[in-house]
Amino acid sequence: MATYSHEVLHNFAQSVFKKIGCSPEDAKIASDTLLSADLRGVDSHGVARLSGYIRLWEKGRINPTPAIKIVHETPSTAVVDGDAGLGLVVAPYAMQVAIEKAKIAGTGWVAVKNSNHYGIAGYHAMKALSHDMIGMSMTNASPLVSPTFSKERLLGTNPIAVAIPADEEPAFVGDFATTTAANGKLEILQRKGEEAPEGWVQDKEGEVTTDAFGVKKGGALRPLGGDKSHGSHKGYILGSIVDIFSAVLSGANYGPWAPPFVSFMDPVSDPVGEGLGHFLGAMRVDAFRPADEFKSNMDKWIRRFKNSEPIDPEQKVLIPGDPEREMESIRMKDGIPLLGAVEKDLSELSEKFDIPFN
Amino acid sequence: MATYSHEVLHNFAQSVFKKIGCSPEDAKIASDTLLSADLRGVDSHGVARLSGYIRLWEKGRINPTPAIKIVHETPSTAVVDGDAGLGLVVAPYAMQVAIEKAKIAGTGWVAVKNSNHYGIAGYHAMKALSHDMIGMSMTNASPLVSPTFSKERLLGTNPIAVAIPADEEPAFVGDFATTTAANGKLEILQRKGEEAPEGWVQDKEGEVTTDAFGVKKGGALRPLGGDKSHGSHKGYILGSIVDIFSAVLSGANYGPWAPPFVSFMDPVSDPVGEGLGHFLGAMRVDAFRPADEFKSNMDKWIRRFKNSEPIDPEQKVLIPGDPEREMESIRMKDGIPLLGAVEKDLSELSEKFDIPFN
Repeated sequence: MATYSHEVLHNFAQSVFKKIGCSPEDAKIASDTLLSADLRGVDSHGVARLSGYIRLWEKGRINPTPAIKIVHETPSTAVVDGDAGLGLVVAPYAMQVAIEKAKIAGTGWVAVKNSNHYGIAGYHAMKALSHDMIGMSMTNASPLVSPTFSKERLLGTNPIAVAIPADEEPAFVGDFATTTAANGKLEILQRKGEEAPEGWVQDKEGEVTTDAFGVKKGGALRPLGGDKSHGSHKGYILGSIVDIFSAVLSGANYGPWAPPFVSFMDPVSDPVGEGLGHFLGAMRVDAFRPADEFKSNMDKWIRRFKNSEPIDPEQKVLIPGDPEREMESIRMKDGIPLLGAVEKDLSELSEKFDIPFN
Repeated sequence: MATYSHEVLHNFAQSVFKKIGCSPEDAKIASDTLLSADLRGVDSHGVARLSGYIRLWEKGRINPTPAIKIVHETPSTAVVDGDAGLGLVVAPYAMQVAIEKAKIAGTGWVAVKNSNHYGIAGYHAMKALSHDMIGMSMTNASPLVSPTFSKERLLGTNPIAVAIPADEEPAFVGDFATTTAANGKLEILQRKGEEAPEGWVQDKEGEVTTDAFGVKKGGALRPLGGDKSHGSHKGYILGSIVDIFSAVLSGANYGPWAPPFVSFMDPVSDPVGEGLGHFLGAMRVDAFRPADEFKSNMDKWIRRFKNSEPIDPEQKVLIPGDPEREMESIRMKDGIPLLGAVEKDLSELSEKFDIPFN
């Protein structure tokens, strides 16, 4: 596993996005979004996906020069049409709209249609932090998840991210798939040849399986909880809320109609909306109480939880966002390790577009 | 187990609330909220709790004549001070504020401090439905839940409810504790003398236990997911978000400082805010797209999910809210069954306040 600096990978991604026709500004925004995943340790959503975006562009499913626009609005809401652009660019636009609304109305909520995969949810939510706002971000995704009691794949891994500012402590940043485990975790087990814990996957008959390839064999991921007695109906509710807020509110494709990320699967022939959907929100902290009061109480909250008595003295209680922030500071300094398969992917892009890599 | 009509129990609760000094209007509102739990089958949160509220009043922890008021607001937000009133009355007031804000600003978000237990989360969220709005409701609660890796009880069961209107189909109503199982489910196992599934409870050393009395013996409920490999860090994030939105945003007591519901435990001597907190929201559907378009797409969503292929032909896929709505129509017709212990409780209240019961 070779290691690359953030700068090298960022420059490479930027050049690739420019080659498919993105403006320099959009290529930078897309690369910022994409690389935030590599930095934060969410390897499945970073440059490992770059060739996937390019294949979608080759299929005509990504518009490199979208006219992203607000198609409806009220003081605290908007619907943004992404014009089939990269979600990596559309979502930052929409998050900015949410922030501007929040400045005036106290909160801003933006539903997005006609978009594509937007990278990691947490990146968009975190944009609110520097404005002393709470940020929220969710997206629907390719159907891979079965509702409790169903054999069919009707939902995506539909992540939710919430970023909450503190004062002296780093921000609270929750960012999680609404399944027991994200698909990226399964891929790690597949590479290692290991089994999945019970509750992650069901086979094509809907029975629990520990086969890490279960989803590829026609099965499905299970909603957070894993089975009914462990609360999978709650994970199903969460995934559904993300789907409805992101796609039914905006006019995107929802549930099993959501367009697949992989280019070898065509979108459904009977769409119920346009593209993929996101839902982004910003709440000004001082729309509720003075920001310094709120943030010093967040410090107190964070310290109380972080210093609570651990079960195992070797494993301290974590604050959401801590592991990713630590990873980011390590990778900014030491670089980003890439698997051989990802290096090969990037080398192929390098040849295809005549951009030096490595 | 004897059965009582909704009317009988509602009248009884109303009389009890009037006896402690509530106005006739507040006594009705509190009884509407309380009985909605019995009707929807959430027996732990209905008249079974009536004597608990009265004991808090006896301790001076509930103000029967609160001056509930907005203490801060922006176009889309407000903070409500519940003046130590019944959450059963304070939350409906705050939800109405959220709805009025949404009429003008598109959405309304109300954080509540200085309140008490507010009944079932779903009842408040559902208030938005008749306005063609999406309703949201959450509350913090007595600390009974340990974050992943912690021995200590730092969070409540902190429920989240989201109610989404449809057209011909009944509304989608998700309402769930952010733990693997709600405390009421444990109480059922305790009465039956049965063990709890793994992942519900940890003992006082923090180890997983199947002892249904584990929490009473100094252990804790586990966040949704049950353990790290099944995603309990996600349940911990969800419970934390509810705690922060309900109590840090509003200025209520958060985390382990949240006041206990039981009257035999005193609130902490070093409060970090006032009373318990809630967070209520309303989003006008047509702040995003025309309401009829949204609602007919919700019908399509609901029908697709409800009719998806089940794993077991005997167990159809459920839409969140279906079981509770069916229970409500049965109990409205056939009455509400009460356990002997609850009947005894109500008989004691009947004697204490000289109100006929049974």
